[in-house]
Amino acid sequence: MDFHIMTLFPDMVRDGLNTSILARAAQRELISIKTYNIRDYTLDKHKKVDDYTYGGGAGMLMQAQPVYDCYAAIVAAQRTRQRIRTIYVTPQGKTFHQEMAREFASEDQLIFLCGHYEGVDERVLEEIVTDSVSIGDYVLTGGELAAMVMVDAIARLVPGVLNNQVSAETESFTDHLLEYPQYSRPEVWHDKRVPEILLSGDHAKVDAWRLEQSVARTKERRPDLYERYRKEQSGEK
Amino acid sequence: MDFHIMTLFPDMVRDGLNTSILARAAQRELISIKTYNIRDYTLDKHKKVDDYTYGGGAGMLMQAQPVYDCYAAIVAAQRTRQRIRTIYVTPQGKTFHQEMAREFASEDQLIFLCGHYEGVDERVLEEIVTDSVSIGDYVLTGGELAAMVMVDAIARLVPGVLNNQVSAETESFTDHLLEYPQYSRPEVWHDKRVPEILLSGDHAKVDAWRLEQSVARTKERRPDLYERYRKEQSGEK
Repeated sequence: MDFHIMTLFPDMVRDGLNTSILARAAQRELISIKTYNIRDYTLDKHKKVDDYTYGGGAGMLMQAQPVYDCYAAIVAAQRTRQRIRTIYVTPQGKTFHQEMAREFASEDQLIFLCGHYEGVDERVLEEIVTDSVSIGDYVLTGGELAAMVMVDAIARLVPGVLNNQVSAETESFTDHLLEYPQYSRPEVWHDKRVPEILLSGDHAKVDAWRLEQSVARTKERRPDLYERYRKEQSGEK
Repeated sequence: MDFHIMTLFPDMVRDGLNTSILARAAQRELISIKTYNIRDYTLDKHKKVDDYTYGGGAGMLMQAQPVYDCYAAIVAAQRTRQRIRTIYVTPQGKTFHQEMAREFASEDQLIFLCGHYEGVDERVLEEIVTDSVSIGDYVLTGGELAAMVMVDAIARLVPGVLNNQVSAETESFTDHLLEYPQYSRPEVWHDKRVPEILLSGDHAKVDAWRLEQSVARTKERRPDLYERYRKEQSGEK
C-alpha cells in the first residue's frame, strides 16, 4: 500500500513515520510512505505558497496553484487510471475512527494533503479532495501530525504489518469496549499484587474477569461507547 | 510551560515537535519539550522493558519498574512540590478535545507517558497517572504520535506561541461551528471565481455569508456539532 503525503514539512513527516513497526513494514515493502514538498511546485519566483484571505481575516491561506500542481505530479507518476482517494486533513472534516481506518486500509494508494497556516484555498480542495477528515475536536498548528496519525492507524491494518494478527483484532473499539487492565512481571510490585485470578491458569475465569473489567471501565470512562455496547448486547438498534 | 515526555522513541518525538511554530516557541523559551527514554531506566541487564501478560494474551506489556523510575527521576529534577499532572496516552482514556487542551494549557508542567507494545502494567499507571487521555477512537502502533498531537494542541494555546492571538480564538470548535470556506489569490483559478461577496468590501455582508457557510457545512458534515450549536442559539439546554 502506497501513502503519498503532500506537506510543507516533508522531513517531519518522514522522520515521524520511520520508526519501529512502520519502518519495518516499509523495509519489508508492505507499505511505502512518500512525502512531497508543496513548496517545490510553486510557480512564484520567491517560492511563496500562501497569501491573504479574500474578505479579510487573520493569517495566511495556502494557494491553489502549488497544491494542485503537486497533486497532479503525484497522480501522473502512478500507473493507475482510477481516481486515487485524496484525504484533506482538517478540523472541518468528518471525525476519523477505527472503521474508517479499516475502509481506507483496503485502498492500494492514498494521497494526504496537510494544510498549514489558516487553511487552503477552497477551489483546489473542490478539485482534488475526495475525503475531508479530522482526527478529533481540537486544533493543531498544522495537518502534519494528523496525517501521520491516520497513516499510522491505517498502515498497521495492512496485512502483515503487525506480526501478531490477533493484536489488530482483539483490541479496543472492535466491540465498543475499552481494554481490561493488564499486568506483567513481577507478581508483586510496590506492594501491589497481580490479581489472583490471572495466575489461576483457568482461562474461562480469566476471560470472564477481563470482560467484567472492560465493561466497568467503559461504563466509567466512555459512557457513549458503553451505551452502544449495551444496545448491541440487548439486541436493540 | 514545560512538557516532559516519557517514551521508547525519544528521537521521533523530538524531531516531530521541533518544526515550525513549536520550534520557534521553544527558541523563544515560551515552552520546553524534554524527552526521556524509558529504556534508560530499566534495571534489567539486557535493557529489557517489557514482558508477557499475566493470564495470557498476545503481545508484550511494558513493565512497571522502568516506567516508575523514569517518572521519579523527572519529578525529582523539578523544583515544584505540587503533583505534576501526568497524562497516559491510551485508547482507554477520555477523549481529548479543545476545552481539555485549554485546561491543560493552564498548567506550568505536564508529564506524558507514551505506551508501546500492548500497554503498560496497570499498577504503575495507578501510582503515577492523573489523566488517561485518548486522541480519538482509533488504534495506533504506539502512544508517541498521540502525545505529539496533544503537546501541539496544548502548546499553541500558551500565550505568545501563536503570533496572531486572533487565530487561536476565532477558529473551529470555539462556537461549535466548523470554519467557512476561504479563498486566496488569484481571483480566478481553473475557471473558478472567488465568491463576489468576498471582494465587496462590505464587512457585515462578508460576516453574514461566512456564518451561513459555517452553519451549512457543520450541518452537513458534523450533525452532532450542529445540534449543539442549534440548542445554544435557541437557548435550550
